[in-house]
Amino acid sequence: MVQRLDETHDPARRSWVDSANGHFDFPVQNLPLGVFLRGDEPRIGCAIGDHMLDLSAAAGLLDPAWQRALSQPVLNDWLAHSPGDDRALRRRLSALLSDPAQRAAVEPHLVKQADVAMHLPVRIGDYTDFYVGIHHATNIGRQFRPDQPLMPNYKYVPIGYHGRASSVRVSGAPVIRPNGQRKRPDETEPSYGPARRLDYELELGLWIGRGNALGEPVPIGEAAQHIAGYCLLNDWSARDLQAWEYQPLGPFLAKNFLTSVSPWMVTSDALLPFRSAIPERPAGDPAPLPYLDDADDRATGALAITIEASLATAAMRAARTAPHRLSHGEADAAMYWSAAQIVAHHSSNGCNLSPGDLIGTGTLSTANDDGRGSLMEISQGGATPLTLSNGEVRSFLEDGDELILSAWCEAPGAVRIGFGTCSGIVMPAPAT
Amino acid sequence: MVQRLDETHDPARRSWVDSANGHFDFPVQNLPLGVFLRGDEPRIGCAIGDHMLDLSAAAGLLDPAWQRALSQPVLNDWLAHSPGDDRALRRRLSALLSDPAQRAAVEPHLVKQADVAMHLPVRIGDYTDFYVGIHHATNIGRQFRPDQPLMPNYKYVPIGYHGRASSVRVSGAPVIRPNGQRKRPDETEPSYGPARRLDYELELGLWIGRGNALGEPVPIGEAAQHIAGYCLLNDWSARDLQAWEYQPLGPFLAKNFLTSVSPWMVTSDALLPFRSAIPERPAGDPAPLPYLDDADDRATGALAITIEASLATAAMRAARTAPHRLSHGEADAAMYWSAAQIVAHHSSNGCNLSPGDLIGTGTLSTANDDGRGSLMEISQGGATPLTLSNGEVRSFLEDGDELILSAWCEAPGAVRIGFGTCSGIVMPAPAT
Repeated sequence: MVQRLDETHDPARRSWVDSANGHFDFPVQNLPLGVFLRGDEPRIGCAIGDHMLDLSAAAGLLDPAWQRALSQPVLNDWLAHSPGDDRALRRRLSALLSDPAQRAAVEPHLVKQADVAMHLPVRIGDYTDFYVGIHHATNIGRQFRPDQPLMPNYKYVPIGYHGRASSVRVSGAPVIRPNGQRKRPDETEPSYGPARRLDYELELGLWIGRGNALGEPVPIGEAAQHIAGYCLLNDWSARDLQAWEYQPLGPFLAKNFLTSVSPWMVTSDALLPFRSAIPERPAGDPAPLPYLDDADDRATGALAITIEASLATAAMRAARTAPHRLSHGEADAAMYWSAAQIVAHHSSNGCNLSPGDLIGTGTLSTANDDGRGSLMEISQGGATPLTLSNGEVRSFLEDGDELILSAWCEAPGAVRIGFGTCSGIVMPAPAT
Repeated sequence: MVQRLDETHDPARRSWVDSANGHFDFPVQNLPLGVFLRGDEPRIGCAIGDHMLDLSAAAGLLDPAWQRALSQPVLNDWLAHSPGDDRALRRRLSALLSDPAQRAAVEPHLVKQADVAMHLPVRIGDYTDFYVGIHHATNIGRQFRPDQPLMPNYKYVPIGYHGRASSVRVSGAPVIRPNGQRKRPDETEPSYGPARRLDYELELGLWIGRGNALGEPVPIGEAAQHIAGYCLLNDWSARDLQAWEYQPLGPFLAKNFLTSVSPWMVTSDALLPFRSAIPERPAGDPAPLPYLDDADDRATGALAITIEASLATAAMRAARTAPHRLSHGEADAAMYWSAAQIVAHHSSNGCNLSPGDLIGTGTLSTANDDGRGSLMEISQGGATPLTLSNGEVRSFLEDGDELILSAWCEAPGAVRIGFGTCSGIVMPAPAT
């Protein structure tokens, strides 16, 4: 079932919050949800321009049935709310923030984003990371298996694996370089010490809304309705730890020292104007198995999200020069599997998803050289170091480097909306 | 720092709860913690013989500082309590349950285990599964790589990967056969349908007590103190899904449809009499890297836990014949890495562990033919089907099969203590 556009998507709608009109990320057509700290207290808010609306404080202006869930310190209870409530909240917020007659009642509950710190929007039950970026899988696979970059299962199975929920942090958290076992090809034994090949991965994150019971798969035709919203996700990766540890059970300590997400949950409703048909699979590729195939998903399952990664070294920040753009591309050109296919596959064996679960797409590299979503790809495993705009050279991340992800959506007849940023600065490893 | 035995371990100590004396699992020397349902309400309890003591109801007999944590529906808050409180609670419970003068005050708070259902003892934040059973790793590896069963990293890295926390259930939960993608070697394309090669894995689970902050590894010398207790764990596995999906990122849907644990947390303190020196590594094996090496752990890191798996088919249950014992062995003979090494490694990159996290050891097979901890090993991937005691034949689990894990500890001069059981009956897959 495909949702329809409504007045909240009207490109002519403007907000009485001046900073929202023409805002890079948060015009009144976006209205992403997040959690911010008011004093020490986490509060649910909605971004509008440079401000956010404190939904707990403004509860008197909203449906009383929503008050308990919107007064929690995280969004989990809200995500478990009745179907349709998410859309009803969006319509109400859009009306409150665009109707000048509401200004007097609403304005006292606005706070400046610059004055508050953001928090994780949910208490994450489980975090899963997928691998649906086919160009990333190909680029990485080619470094290890030039003749067969993709495994035989890749075009049948949306490959995924479990990540660590406890170490997911909101944008801005320091990236402490991990210690771990590293072994260069010329070394006969591994040693324990700071990762030498620290990398980022440019991903989107999906936030699960309503869950499913154990043993009851989510059918592909209903899967999109279980996705509450999206964020940016940086799957920080220690490539040397990964290469040594990952066989036979997959990445572990190479990844679970930190995963960063952007603070704002851009809702599935806000993204409706940016949906389009999934690109045809290349000739010769197998059709998805029936449990992963749905006509609505084929027609609307692609998301026109532009994604970008930039690097600001310590020297750049000291000199106040602009970050170096590492990559730039379109998410839908990178994804071999749609968000709905990810959710349907994840639950296809009866695995239960819960409100607030986080699912990463995997690194979203495009087919182009300027669309590679990790340094492992850009520097080809360190073989072709990158010269930055200020002359510095990088194969992997160095201490002091700040990595910044951003994303936005544009489409004809729609107002641009954005995701905010997801960033982190690399700090030295603890002494061993 | 090695804890010392105290009066709670005294083999001469007896309980005024008659069923505890000589009890197979729960004499007064054990005192495992768990959560049971009193009506609909989850309550923390301590097993004693055929009964359990309701610690919430008996709070007036305990230190008032413990009351809030012991009145919760799960053990997480208790696991985060001050160091030493776990040992102090054990001493108090042992005194209350052995001193006849306390009987009148305590007895009203006993309930029969037969009258209540057990619950998961904690709210699991993250679940990690390791692979420290070297004979299991060798047995499985040999089926795929006869010349090199173990990967080059195995004797350096305690291999582990993240599992699914949401689908961990307490013993007794139905095992719904998962649907998934299966592809036999003679098939050119996979199909989606019921797993044909459903298996169990005989493991121990570690419950994390106090956690560590992100970025702050737990040193090997302190790691044992972060383990609150142990349980049995069955890592149900769909081998055909696993073979097709697991490259390159590891097992996913083959495992996350269900993980079963026994309800009782056998505390680290209760296991003290069963500790011994870790067996010497075979000649030629590398020494553990310094961050995994500790003199106390070498001296006391092995646990004399006997583990067993049995199968009761539907026909056996109907005929009231005894289950068929599938395997029997000693955990310490199976584990290449100790529990402390598991915890130290898991946090060695700064990954934060939290109270109530669950860590599986991986399948604990011994070197002997009667110590294989999965049907994949017993039937050698289906090549040598097993004839059961009643004449039935199995390569993998069939619908209606009940799989039962059990474990106990014996040592000279100590009273035997047990883990209870971890069981589940296989149910048919949902229609596709």
